[in-house]
Order: sequence, then C-alpha cells, then structure tokens
Amino acid sequence: MTGRTERLREFFPILEWARDYDRGNLTGDLTAAAIVTIMLIPQSLAYALLAGLPAEVGLYASILPLVAYTVFGTSRALAVGPVAVVSLMTATALAPLGLSSVTEYVAAAGVLALLSGMFLVAMGALKMGALSSLLSHPVIAGFISASGLLIAASQLKHILGIPVSGHTFPEILVEIFVQFGRTNVATLAIGAATLAFLFWARKGLARALVRKCNVTQHFASTAARIGPVFAVIGTTFLTWALNLPELGVAIVGEVPTGFPPLGLPGIDTSLISQLVAPAILISIIGYVESVSVAQTLAAKKKQRIGPNQELIALGASNISSALSGGYPVTGGFARSVVNFDAGAETPAAGAFTAVGLLFAALALTPLLFFLPKATLAATIIVAVLSLVDLTILKHAWDYSKADFAAVFATMALTLTMGVEIGVASGVAVSLVLFVWKTARPHVAEVGQVPGSHHFRNIHRHQVLTDPAILTLRIDESLYFANARRMEDLILARVHRNRDEIRHVVLMCSAVNEIDLSALDSLEAINQRLRDLDVTLHLSEVKGPVMDRLKRSHFLDHLSGRVFLSQHEAFHGLKGADTVAA
Amino acid sequence: MTGRTERLREFFPILEWARDYDRGNLTGDLTAAAIVTIMLIPQSLAYALLAGLPAEVGLYASILPLVAYTVFGTSRALAVGPVAVVSLMTATALAPLGLSSVTEYVAAAGVLALLSGMFLVAMGALKMGALSSLLSHPVIAGFISASGLLIAASQLKHILGIPVSGHTFPEILVEIFVQFGRTNVATLAIGAATLAFLFWARKGLARALVRKCNVTQHFASTAARIGPVFAVIGTTFLTWALNLPELGVAIVGEVPTGFPPLGLPGIDTSLISQLVAPAILISIIGYVESVSVAQTLAAKKKQRIGPNQELIALGASNISSALSGGYPVTGGFARSVVNFDAGAETPAAGAFTAVGLLFAALALTPLLFFLPKATLAATIIVAVLSLVDLTILKHAWDYSKADFAAVFATMALTLTMGVEIGVASGVAVSLVLFVWKTARPHVAEVGQVPGSHHFRNIHRHQVLTDPAILTLRIDESLYFANARRMEDLILARVHRNRDEIRHVVLMCSAVNEIDLSALDSLEAINQRLRDLDVTLHLSEVKGPVMDRLKRSHFLDHLSGRVFLSQHEAFHGLKGADTVAA
Repeated sequence: MTGRTERLREFFPILEWARDYDRGNLTGDLTAAAIVTIMLIPQSLAYALLAGLPAEVGLYASILPLVAYTVFGTSRALAVGPVAVVSLMTATALAPLGLSSVTEYVAAAGVLALLSGMFLVAMGALKMGALSSLLSHPVIAGFISASGLLIAASQLKHILGIPVSGHTFPEILVEIFVQFGRTNVATLAIGAATLAFLFWARKGLARALVRKCNVTQHFASTAARIGPVFAVIGTTFLTWALNLPELGVAIVGEVPTGFPPLGLPGIDTSLISQLVAPAILISIIGYVESVSVAQTLAAKKKQRIGPNQELIALGASNISSALSGGYPVTGGFARSVVNFDAGAETPAAGAFTAVGLLFAALALTPLLFFLPKATLAATIIVAVLSLVDLTILKHAWDYSKADFAAVFATMALTLTMGVEIGVASGVAVSLVLFVWKTARPHVAEVGQVPGSHHFRNIHRHQVLTDPAILTLRIDESLYFANARRMEDLILARVHRNRDEIRHVVLMCSAVNEIDLSALDSLEAINQRLRDLDVTLHLSEVKGPVMDRLKRSHFLDHLSGRVFLSQHEAFHGLKGADTVAA
Repeated sequence: MTGRTERLREFFPILEWARDYDRGNLTGDLTAAAIVTIMLIPQSLAYALLAGLPAEVGLYASILPLVAYTVFGTSRALAVGPVAVVSLMTATALAPLGLSSVTEYVAAAGVLALLSGMFLVAMGALKMGALSSLLSHPVIAGFISASGLLIAASQLKHILGIPVSGHTFPEILVEIFVQFGRTNVATLAIGAATLAFLFWARKGLARALVRKCNVTQHFASTAARIGPVFAVIGTTFLTWALNLPELGVAIVGEVPTGFPPLGLPGIDTSLISQLVAPAILISIIGYVESVSVAQTLAAKKKQRIGPNQELIALGASNISSALSGGYPVTGGFARSVVNFDAGAETPAAGAFTAVGLLFAALALTPLLFFLPKATLAATIIVAVLSLVDLTILKHAWDYSKADFAAVFATMALTLTMGVEIGVASGVAVSLVLFVWKTARPHVAEVGQVPGSHHFRNIHRHQVLTDPAILTLRIDESLYFANARRMEDLILARVHRNRDEIRHVVLMCSAVNEIDLSALDSLEAINQRLRDLDVTLHLSEVKGPVMDRLKRSHFLDHLSGRVFLSQHEAFHGLKGADTVAA
C-alpha cells in the first residue's frame, strides 16, 4: 500500500471496512438499523422539543449526520444524532438571542451546528483531540448527572401541563411548586402513565417477556429498549380516540411531511458572533460524550478508534446537519448501545438507519398529529435519569478532596447557573487545584532502607541516616509556582540543624522539569548554603532535566556534585566525611 | 517572651529593632536619609508626572507611606514611594475613566491607592503572599524591561516638546516620527543636555571624581546617584535666567506649598468598580517588585523578610498614601539600593527621609517653578532604561522554549497592548505551557545499571533488561490531562512486543499524585493487559500516593504486585519467570 493510499484510508475509514463487506455484515447491519430506526423516531422528536425546536427538526438532524459519520467515522457502532445534553445546550445558547419567529430560531440552531462542525473539523485538522482531556472524569460525570437532573426537571412542565419559564434547577422547582394547583389532570394522567410504563419497561419488561413469552434474553432486552415506541403508539391512539386535546392535553400537532431543501441556514450575520462561544462549548462536550461512548464500545470488540479522525467525523456530521435543516448532533450513548447490542457490524448500519428515518420523515409524520407532548417528555425523563449517578460525589470525596471539589463545583453550578458556566467552572476548578497542588509540593526527608540501595521517607520507614547529610526528596517538578517556596523550605530545614549538617543532597527522582525561575532558586540555595559552609549536591537527576542544566551555568557554580544514584551520593559523602574527620 | 508579645512583634516589626536602637544605627540612618531625600525630590516629582498627576502628588506619596513602612515592614533597607512601573500602571488605569478635572483625577488616583492597600492587607491577613509566585522570573523580567521601554518612549515627547497621545509603543513611535518636524529646539537642547549629563553621571562621574578629586569610591558612587539633583538645579537656573518658557520650554510651574489635609479621597462611587481590577494588578506587580528588592538586599546582610508581613506593610503604605493625597506606591529598586549603600541600618532611615521630604513639600516647592519638564523626563528615561535587560530573551531561548514563550509574550503584549494585558498574558502563557507540558509527559523505558540497584533509561545508559519485563518510568504525576494519553502510550508499547512481554512494571518514583481520572485509566490499563495475559505491577510508589490508592479498590483488582523498589520488582519477577519456565 503506498503512503498516499494509506493517508486516504485514514481520512476515509469507509475505504477500510467497505472492501471486506460481506453478507454477514449486511444482515447484522440491517437488523440493527431496523431496531434503531424504531427507537429513534420518538427520541429525535423529543430532543428537538427539548431544544425548543419543532419536532421534525429532530428527524432532519438524524438523517444526513448518520451518513456523514458512516463515511468519516472510526467507530463501528456509534450512532450520531440529537442527544439530551447537546439539545439542552442548544436551548441555552439560543434563548438569549430573543428570536421571535420559529423560522429564525430553527435557522439559528442550524448556524450553531455549522459553527460547531467547522470548529470540530478545524480541531481535527490541527490534531487537537487531546484538548478534550482537560475535562476530567469527575467533571464529566458531574456535568452529565447535573444536566440529567436539569433536563428531567425542565420536562416536568409537560407532564403537569403547566407553563414554566425558568432555566435553572431551583427556578424550575419553585415555579412548579407555585403553580402545582393549575395542573391539567388529563395531561398528568397521560404523562404519569407513560412514565410508569417506561420505568417498568426498563426494569421489568425484559424479565416478564423472558418468563411469560418464552423469548430469548437478547430479544427481550431489545424489545424493552423500544418501549417508548409502544408508549407513543398507545398514547397517540388514546388521545385521538378520547379527543383529549379538548381537555387541554398538548399535542405535537401538524408536522410537515417531506425533507427540507439542502442549503445553508439563513440568519442575521450579527447573531453569528454570539453563537461562536456556545458552539465551541457544544463541540467539546459533544466530542467528549461521543468519544467516551465510542471507546467503551470499541474496547468490547478490541477495536481502536482514532480520536482526531473522530473530530473530523463529528464535524462533518454537524455540517451536514446544518445543511439539511437540523441542529447540533453528536454520538449518543443510548442509541449507540442499542445499535451495538442489535448486532451492528460496520458504520453501514448508520446509513441504513438514515434511510429508515428518511422514510419516517416522508411518510409517517401525519400519524404524529395526536402524539401528546407529555409522552415525549416522559421519554426524555426516563432516558436522562438513567444518566444521573450521584455516587460520583461520595466516590470522589473518599478518594480525593480536589476531585470532589471539581465534581461538586460542576454539579452545583450546572444546576444553579446553567450548563455553560457549570462545565467551564469544572474545568477551571480542576486546573486551579492542579496548579495549587503542584505549587505546594510534598518534600520528604529520606534515609537508606537497611540492606538495600533504596531511600525512603524517614517518617514512614525504618531507615539509616547520617547527621552530617540531609537528603531531601522533592516530590514535584520545580517551576515558577513552587520555586520560591522550595527555597524557603530547604533553607529553613538546614537552619534547624545548622551545626551538624555538612551536605545537602536534593534527590531529584521526582523532578521532571526545572524551569528558569527554579534554576534561579537553585542558584540562590547553592549560594546561601555556601555561605553556611554547607555543600549542595543533586542525585538521580533525569536525563532531560540534566540536558537542560548542562545548557546553563548552574553546574559550574554548584558547590557539590551530581550523583547518578542516591546510594552513590550517600556513600560517597559519608566516605568524604570520614576522610575529612 | 509570651506568645502574645511574639505575635505583636510579628505584626509590628518595629518593636523588634527599636528595642536595640543605638547611636551607631542613628548615624547610619541619618546619613542614608539625607542622601535619599535629595535623590527622591526630583524622582517623586517625575513619577507623578508620568502617572499624569500634578508634580506635588509625588511628594505627598513619598512621606506617610515611608512612615507606615517603618512601622510594619520587615526589610531594613526598603524605601517605599512612587516607582516607574506603578506610575505607568496608574496612568493606564485612570486614562479610560475620562475624567475632565485635575481634582477628580487626583482623587481617582487616591482611590486606586486605597483599593490597592485594602487588597494587600487582605492578602496579608489571608497569608496569600504565595499567590505572587504565579509571576515567573521570565515574566517579571520581560514585564519590567518592556515597561521600561514603554516609559522611556512615553517621555520622549517631553524631551522633544511635542504632544503625543498614544499609549502603546508602536503608536508612540509613529506619532513621534510624524511630528518630529515640530520639535521645540530649546526644549530639545535642555532635554538632550540633561540626558547626556545623566548618562555620563551614571557611568563616568564616579570614576572622574575618584581620579580627579581624590574622594573615596563610596562617596563618588553616592554622588553619582544624586546626579539628577544637579541636573534639576542647573536646568532650573538656566530656564529662569534665559527666560526659556518664552521659547516654548514647558515647566512644572506653580506647585502648592504645604501638605494636603488628611482624609479619604472623594470620588463618584460609580467609578470605584472600574478601579478594582487595575488596583489588584497594581498591588500584585508592586508587591512582586518590592519583595524582590527587599529579598535581594536582605540576603546581602543575611537578614530575612516575611512575605506575608510585607503585604501588610505595603498595604498600610498605600492606605496612608491614599489618606494623604498620594497615589499607589511600592518599594522601589533605585531608592532602596541608595538607602542600603548609604548605610541605612533600620527602617528608621525611612522615617527620617519622610521628615526631609515633608520639609521639601512645605518649603522648597516655590523653587521648582522654573524646573523644565524635559529635565524630569530625562531623569525618568535614564532610570527606566537601566531596568531594560533584553538578554533575558536570549537566556530564556537557550534554556527553555517555554520560558522564552512566556517572556516573549509578556514583552510583545506589554509594548503593543499595554501593561495590564501584557502581564496577564505572561501569567496565562506560563500556566498554559505548564499544563501543556505535564499533559505530555516523558516516559522512559528503564533497565538496571550493572552492579547497582539503580534503574535508568535504556536509551541513555548501558543497562540490563529482560525481554519478558517491560519497565516504564513515568516522569509526571498522573492526572486528568495526561491520563488518557498515558493509557494509549503504555498499551501501544506493549503491543510492539506483544509476544515476549509477560510483566509490565510502572516505576512511579516521579508520580507525585494519581487523581480520580488517572485511577480510572490505571484500572483500564490493568484490565486491557489482563486480556493480553500480561501482569501489571507498580514499583517505588510514594507514601502519599499509596495512602490514596489504598482508599480505592484499585489494589484489589491489580493483576500484579506493588514493589517497594524497582530492584525488588525486577529481581522478584525474573525469579518468578524462571520458576514458571
């Protein structure tokens, strides 16, 4: 294979798997596509409503993006489309624009997808996938859980049939509390029944099917996954048959049939600048969510996904969503798991799902007229509550207070200030605490573990020491934020046993970097110790650090030596003293 | 000494040195005070003009702050008052307020000093002195040099006698270039002559005095330091005698005699919120500059200064400056060095200087009427150019590209975007590069140095290895920003020799922290290696890291063992293999 073909394959992973595509793949992919299509119809409508968009926009956002991911994506099971968190973030981004008409609102959502897609492609081209690692696991976990709670709360209004305008968790709860008396009974009946059915479907349906209908476990759990479809069919029928809209039950109403013409969304250019920051945040969150799902599924089949190529693939998906009347999309957890479990072998399953959804958009939308919004809200609530995992709080608390602070800040601020501030604060808190910790490093006074060449903390191990030799192991890279502190700490320690100490050895096994500020501090330490007639030595300096020290004048000024190992330092200096004595 | 007295002494260092004050101290302090007073009169006038304030405000800012520092300060030689960089920052902070009257402008400068003082005292009370360590040495050096160039450029208009309104280095140079033809010849003559004299005084005067007048080296260099006073007297006399204002030479003019009434500066409260951010920045920069000077001088006499008490002292100085009609102050380099060289023994020298300056404010100001502004500008130019040290660029480039990036960003942005953006960018660049570096850590494959218990990089040293045992030394704390990368890197390395490797040992001597995200990655590595029938071991895990691992379930899942030393790991596993073979 020439280098050029290889690069082409890297950019179009489809060339890799399409070559060996066979009948076995086709069967698996078609089955998975059929199941995912059925599951996605209510889900995509529901998420569009969550984003504040007309229901059909959810369908549009589920078709071309799937095809784009089929061409560019590296995961064999990921299903791209509207997801809960990104839909919520879309609503948050569009709310402050104050758009009056639905057309404008839809166009703005399209622009958001376009900007997000362009940003993702640019990140991919620059191989900046690693940037997403700034989101720590606790921050992601906290953010997803808090978003789940926020989304569930925001859907309660549809279950109760009351208007709620708040955007934060406390605002929403207070409004619901105040207006509880105005609950629409028929809406609540539909909503509560759907919720009850969906919760049961998730837990009990599969078990009941296996026990009573004698089907396989696999079939039963797939049937349980498409529970929302039964709820949609059942409640739509009931609403039509009992004429529930007359009792105040809100329904989806007329959904246009067909597919919008392809083209760029039209929007007042002055609004674009306001959408850039939200688009970047949506891109990063969407990317992290998608890559986590893809990696989890790939690990099960020992496949690998390419983080930078995934940026390109998600970027292409968002751009195609923008061109086809959709809104921001990413790889979703639930849909990908269903796709995987139902036997998807290659990304072609996604393309087949797209065909199924296109058919739905062209032919099935009239059937959705009597679909109650409460049903869709119940679907969302059940889906997002499964994302909520508050045990991360206890887990982080037990393991490390810094991790707890990050997850707590993320959750508290997401619930009270919104998703954008929440996630940004989580990242900021994580970084600040990291710098804070490295600025206050652990320093251990060490001695020799008897009978070994190993040196450990004198307070934790039984070790041999020499009163004339003070050995300090510095447990951090030396850099500007801790250089001065280290200087004070070492000199203060020497002053405590000023009469005995003849040598100070800095054991640098954990010093991965010495920057220019720290070099100045080392020079100062060397000079101050020289004034006290104490010699400064270094031991176990790593290769890259030593290379850099050699480029400075520090080693010329150093009063003592640089030892390869702490063992050599300790025994070399003990010897020197005996001779001197 | 009771604990209470000790705490009192910590808060009022004056109690410490005043107890043992003797005639020797008095002589030294009085001599130093006399010299510093003479030097400070022109300097404080000049810096006030640099800040855009009437000249007398510089005198006011030099009196009470010195007294406050005498009471609270821990440095024995630091002289507090107006300094170049803080004066420039004051001008930058006040310019956007658009104040029309001089009275309002002076009041706003006072408020800036008050806010800065309150912030410093709060930082001191919270023992937050370490926060200033976020300013790395290269950032400070770059900032001081760039500020020096900026200040020198800003003073050229006074030397040429042309109006210049730009605030950035390129703006100023362009305006001067365009208006060069409008230069006032008499002003240029005064300015250029003063510049020439001051540069000569700095370099040649001391040498000439020693050679021709047979004075001591010490006297000669002190005389050279007060060169500006001769320039002030000479040019003032000439301007009066030749009636130069008629030829367009700008003069200081009427300076009110006396001292303003003590009290809070009056200002529209709506302006206060705009001054908070600049006040914080001025506080931090001023503190860093002052503490560097104090520490340099203290080291020469083996004294120590207390960083947190210095915050209190500088805060008190700024508050007293605000109460007495002054503007933000800090410990200055030039004045402190002169004070030190002239023999100041205790902070009392500062109090004596304050008395001298009070006399100047009360009696000498009428003599300043004919003082040309060009003379003061020349004084500033010579003073600030001595701060400019462009070798830091080469020095940082040679040592580390990250340090170079920080110093370059600081200098370039200070010159082109102003001091506030410049220093903030320097800090941001330093932090981002630190995170960037730690996110991409060095990982060394290590083997045993023959005849020792020491393990080093196989690419740098002749070492013993075993094909069944892969030992990787991870040269960084494991945390969210590098966890995923580390996971990929370790697994990719194992895949390269998948058939041979039976054991992977992670040597953790440089791992100072494992956060929750990294713990998840370690779990994943353990699981993936287990799938490949490879055992994962850890060695040389530090005490604090081990404590934390014990609080998680990781050690229960770990397929291999945790060894105290890498030597034990290597020989233990080699033995295990022999048995297994």
